[in-house]
Amino acid sequence: MDGPSERFEAEPDDTRAAIMKATYEALLKHGYADLTIQRIGDEFAKSKSLLYHHYESKDALLVDFMAFMLEVMEEAVPVEEGETADEKLQVVIDHVFENMLAEDDDFMHAMIELRAQAVHDEAFRESFTKNDEFITDRVREIIADGVAEGTFRDVDPDRAATMFLTFIQGAMFSHATTENADLDVIRGELETYLDLNLLGED
Amino acid sequence: MDGPSERFEAEPDDTRAAIMKATYEALLKHGYADLTIQRIGDEFAKSKSLLYHHYESKDALLVDFMAFMLEVMEEAVPVEEGETADEKLQVVIDHVFENMLAEDDDFMHAMIELRAQAVHDEAFRESFTKNDEFITDRVREIIADGVAEGTFRDVDPDRAATMFLTFIQGAMFSHATTENADLDVIRGELETYLDLNLLGED
Repeated sequence: MDGPSERFEAEPDDTRAAIMKATYEALLKHGYADLTIQRIGDEFAKSKSLLYHHYESKDALLVDFMAFMLEVMEEAVPVEEGETADEKLQVVIDHVFENMLAEDDDFMHAMIELRAQAVHDEAFRESFTKNDEFITDRVREIIADGVAEGTFRDVDPDRAATMFLTFIQGAMFSHATTENADLDVIRGELETYLDLNLLGED
Repeated sequence: MDGPSERFEAEPDDTRAAIMKATYEALLKHGYADLTIQRIGDEFAKSKSLLYHHYESKDALLVDFMAFMLEVMEEAVPVEEGETADEKLQVVIDHVFENMLAEDDDFMHAMIELRAQAVHDEAFRESFTKNDEFITDRVREIIADGVAEGTFRDVDPDRAATMFLTFIQGAMFSHATTENADLDVIRGELETYLDLNLLGED
């Protein structure tokens, strides 16, 4: 259940992983706006010409970085933990709030800046759409199982998963761009929604 | 209950309003990243030197633009409509989904890019914090009244208002940065939450 930071701590064993680690370090240091291939190269132990050989632009490199982060997330989100559907969903909530949202502030900020590029850049948009679909699919599947096994009320798994993802996005966006987002309160309200709406508990 | 677009249609009657209109037009055309004072000047009928006289930088002008947008929003959000607390809250939801979220895509995109600046710029951060507090305060007040008058269950108005704002932020962010956000489903899920959590209806 490692977060992205931990993923980068080990010495990377192939060129792409080494480039991704350098990109991560450069993003933390400079943010999206001041990031350049040169600055990513400064974090890269191997020959800088490798960077230019693999990627034609900063944005091409960052789109691959997003794909890499999705792979990291897919490996990190726990899929085998928990017995019943509500326990499995709780594991996903714990993962999101303890790993993704509690990620180093600089990294979360860089991800918000990257995501803002998606408003006008098709490749970024596709990348974040895939990213969100991964979490939504996982949650939809847990909810559908929960309805089938009778743990959850007869809700529409598609709609409930959309609600879940929308809420997580709002938590991330508010936390990164304002002073007053309280992640503990936000997490508590998500759990209240799940209790009321999915479990039918009061 | 006019949205921001309508607010700018009338011929502005003072210099600040004229600068704000020019900023709005330039943001729609160029987005945040490619916006310059020169390009704002191109949308401005009066002498361009007025722009430089009033604002020392693009970001200073944009921070004032955010304050102006907050004033527009404060005027636009309906406060007198609806009899009971649940009707008043429904009016706010209608306003948010029909005006703010259905705003011209280019404008919504520009706002997301502006908000992304808040991750590293204190002035933008303060501005968006105020912006969010305005909506949260309005919702908190309606919920507190609803609890007092017995329309709503005995929920914590602070926590419920945080939930509401987080959800709206997520709707805006998902809608602007991915392909698959369905605003009708998202709105329906927010209304379901309010029915279950506030009204205690099933």
